[in-house]
Amino acid sequence: MTASSSKNLSCIASIRSIADIGASKKRHYSYLKMFHDTFKGKLYAINPSAEPIPEFPDVAVYARVTDVPDDEPVDFAFIEVPREHVIGVVKDCAMKGVKLAAIFSSGFADAGTDEGRKLQADLARFIKEEGNGLHVIGPNGMGLYYPRLGIRWRPSLPVEHGSTGIVAQSGGLCNLLIHGLSAAGIPVSTALSIGNAMDITALNAIAYFKDDPDTETIVAYLEGIPESRGKEFMRLLRACQKPIILIKGGRTATGSKAARSHTASLVGNYSAWLAATRQSGALLVETFEDVVDMAKYVTCYDKARVKNVCMLTLSGGYGVICSDALASHGIAMPDFAGNERLNGSLRHEIAANGTSVGNPVDVGAFIYEVAKLEAIAKLVLADPSVDGLIFEIAPLYVASSLRPDVHLETELPAMLARVKQHVAKPVVVITEDIGYDAVKADITARLRGLEIPVFSDISHIARTLRYVNDMKRSEG
Amino acid sequence: MTASSSKNLSCIASIRSIADIGASKKRHYSYLKMFHDTFKGKLYAINPSAEPIPEFPDVAVYARVTDVPDDEPVDFAFIEVPREHVIGVVKDCAMKGVKLAAIFSSGFADAGTDEGRKLQADLARFIKEEGNGLHVIGPNGMGLYYPRLGIRWRPSLPVEHGSTGIVAQSGGLCNLLIHGLSAAGIPVSTALSIGNAMDITALNAIAYFKDDPDTETIVAYLEGIPESRGKEFMRLLRACQKPIILIKGGRTATGSKAARSHTASLVGNYSAWLAATRQSGALLVETFEDVVDMAKYVTCYDKARVKNVCMLTLSGGYGVICSDALASHGIAMPDFAGNERLNGSLRHEIAANGTSVGNPVDVGAFIYEVAKLEAIAKLVLADPSVDGLIFEIAPLYVASSLRPDVHLETELPAMLARVKQHVAKPVVVITEDIGYDAVKADITARLRGLEIPVFSDISHIARTLRYVNDMKRSEG
Repeated sequence: MTASSSKNLSCIASIRSIADIGASKKRHYSYLKMFHDTFKGKLYAINPSAEPIPEFPDVAVYARVTDVPDDEPVDFAFIEVPREHVIGVVKDCAMKGVKLAAIFSSGFADAGTDEGRKLQADLARFIKEEGNGLHVIGPNGMGLYYPRLGIRWRPSLPVEHGSTGIVAQSGGLCNLLIHGLSAAGIPVSTALSIGNAMDITALNAIAYFKDDPDTETIVAYLEGIPESRGKEFMRLLRACQKPIILIKGGRTATGSKAARSHTASLVGNYSAWLAATRQSGALLVETFEDVVDMAKYVTCYDKARVKNVCMLTLSGGYGVICSDALASHGIAMPDFAGNERLNGSLRHEIAANGTSVGNPVDVGAFIYEVAKLEAIAKLVLADPSVDGLIFEIAPLYVASSLRPDVHLETELPAMLARVKQHVAKPVVVITEDIGYDAVKADITARLRGLEIPVFSDISHIARTLRYVNDMKRSEG
Repeated sequence: MTASSSKNLSCIASIRSIADIGASKKRHYSYLKMFHDTFKGKLYAINPSAEPIPEFPDVAVYARVTDVPDDEPVDFAFIEVPREHVIGVVKDCAMKGVKLAAIFSSGFADAGTDEGRKLQADLARFIKEEGNGLHVIGPNGMGLYYPRLGIRWRPSLPVEHGSTGIVAQSGGLCNLLIHGLSAAGIPVSTALSIGNAMDITALNAIAYFKDDPDTETIVAYLEGIPESRGKEFMRLLRACQKPIILIKGGRTATGSKAARSHTASLVGNYSAWLAATRQSGALLVETFEDVVDMAKYVTCYDKARVKNVCMLTLSGGYGVICSDALASHGIAMPDFAGNERLNGSLRHEIAANGTSVGNPVDVGAFIYEVAKLEAIAKLVLADPSVDGLIFEIAPLYVASSLRPDVHLETELPAMLARVKQHVAKPVVVITEDIGYDAVKADITARLRGLEIPVFSDISHIARTLRYVNDMKRSEG
């Protein structure tokens, strides 16, 4: 079995029973409660006392997972016992025929001690040699989030499921990613917080997502990949047709020091990593916010490049600043002055005093003339010099309309959806952070429903497009 | 009179009467209505018909501003007549002894025609030679926003007033700035949308803000300064003790082309401009979002540098990514490993298994132990190697508390206020965009009340600190 196998993570979709091993009153049965609240399958609590739990009378309690009757399979085990008991519990799981376990317990290689390292090495050896097909997420990770079946690791995590898969070497970041993506309207299919990645690695997770029919976009947070696995990793990325958004902790000397103290990962040389992954077709981003931005983009437009953009703005000055920001990220704004055909048509729409129509196009004067905006947007986007359109919707002009008969909050999104469909090039919206939060949330949700991504900050658009443009593609 | 005089803009504070010249039924008396709604002084409508306006029975209407009785001075005129009538109206204003007028009308130099340029040149000559002390904002600008007296140019503009002065060569951007700053809790003292800057220039505006007792921070959006005024401009910036946040449209070739088509400004060479303004002590930023971020920072910490930062995070992985983002903007995170004194004290607080405590410090395990967080924050911030603290408050952990007895939404802000007061170095908070909008808004407002700026994105913090750090200061 190669490391880029999925190690049968595909069993996740058919989890029908869970054993919460180590559920204890002392910890308020918090994980048990969470499974009980949302998991629809059979639930077992494993605790040496084997006493029924009054708060959960419908949960069967056993001293060991091997005590569960033979005709009742346990598909997934969540292990929250103290580290010294983990090996015994894992042996029981293997004996019971459990296929997947998440070890939440910490104090293994993460402890930075010889004792911890030895405990982990023993565990790894057992899984490899006598595991009976058992695979393990962790230790020292949050484990498995699979909202389709109500499997979560924190009660606040959303119950809605989507089509973005996450694998992360950091549980806290995994929480942020799940919440951040969901808040952006991009719910998650599966998240794997792999912790020390003793058995299930990021490569296994990506291999699983690559073939998972419920996952369309992949997000991976990595601090390091063992050097021996580098080539295999690149092959896996190249083989994956789905967009992979990759964020690498420890790009800089400072970050790399932080990563070493975080997961003891050897982060390697970032520029080598950068060069290699770019070749592989992965979308390499830099910050948490970049991940959410990129996910917004690729869920609408896959990996479509936008090297030459046209922007429609409501204010000349804002257009100037945005032009600067785009240019400093290598995104061009084609000059329409020398474009006779386009300029002729635009002049017809805009009747701009005989002067050339520039790019950005200042449409502030026509904000209430939606048909004219549509004509302008279709014209510029259809021009061969333009790959994509950025449309400014300042919430101010939607909120405090000077024309009560025009309902910009519905008419602008519908218009942009027609434009996007007409031309089949990316359209993105910028709606600034200037208050009017309710209006902004409303228009963002409408646009999201029409698969038009919305950003609040021109730097975010510029960074997102730069990452997409920088990605290498195979020819043809 | 030098260009860096304030041209008596200090008269703004004592505006007791306004003439709305050109108020017309056709335009629904929209400006008149706005002044009527919030301006507390005497209001005149000037319209050739001189007929009373039924909707505004308490507003005196005259055919010409010179018809206003001699014993009733007009302090400010808002001119919204067609361009061909502007010169006549301006002559009347001068005759009446009006000290300040805003010409909203456009079609002057902005039209890009010989006719427009001539109209503007005639107007400029009159003001200079026969103006009788009249000064003019515009033409082709929104004019004057002075919320203290209820003077606005758009009914949606906030009525609350603050201590940030704005001058902008773009009316639309001026709107965004007023709304964006107000939404960030930084209301405005005066905003001047100077349009073609025929008489009142950005230099005059800055000179006015420099001495205005109600203005503590200055924001300027410029596309160009005439080359002949360059040295004077730099002298003015150097002479100003208040933080000046400067954003220059047309930094790049693309942006500079956009600026030419916007205000016909010659934008000059950005790197020369950058070098000169840095020397002057102005805070040069690049995007609209940068302006708001910088204003949040300087209103709390003036121009305090933070070259070496300590970060307290709730997740190791998030700390790694943030370290990378800070490092790539030249902000260091001092290594605590070699810092025996600090590491000893930190170990005492954190009891971290005998390992060194890193920077960022992962305080995820202590998020509900506010006293411990306070001790850690005070320790690291007091260390001479640290100039400032970034504290992560993920709204998730505040919203879905695992400890109902701990009220993080009030206890964390109060704790950080004590830390900031104890050590007198900048403390900023990052609270990610991951949903929980109400919690986020609540904690942001509390922190703002304690003069602790809040950001949503590590790139925003990194950019803000970089701009502050890059600014040159005079020695000593």
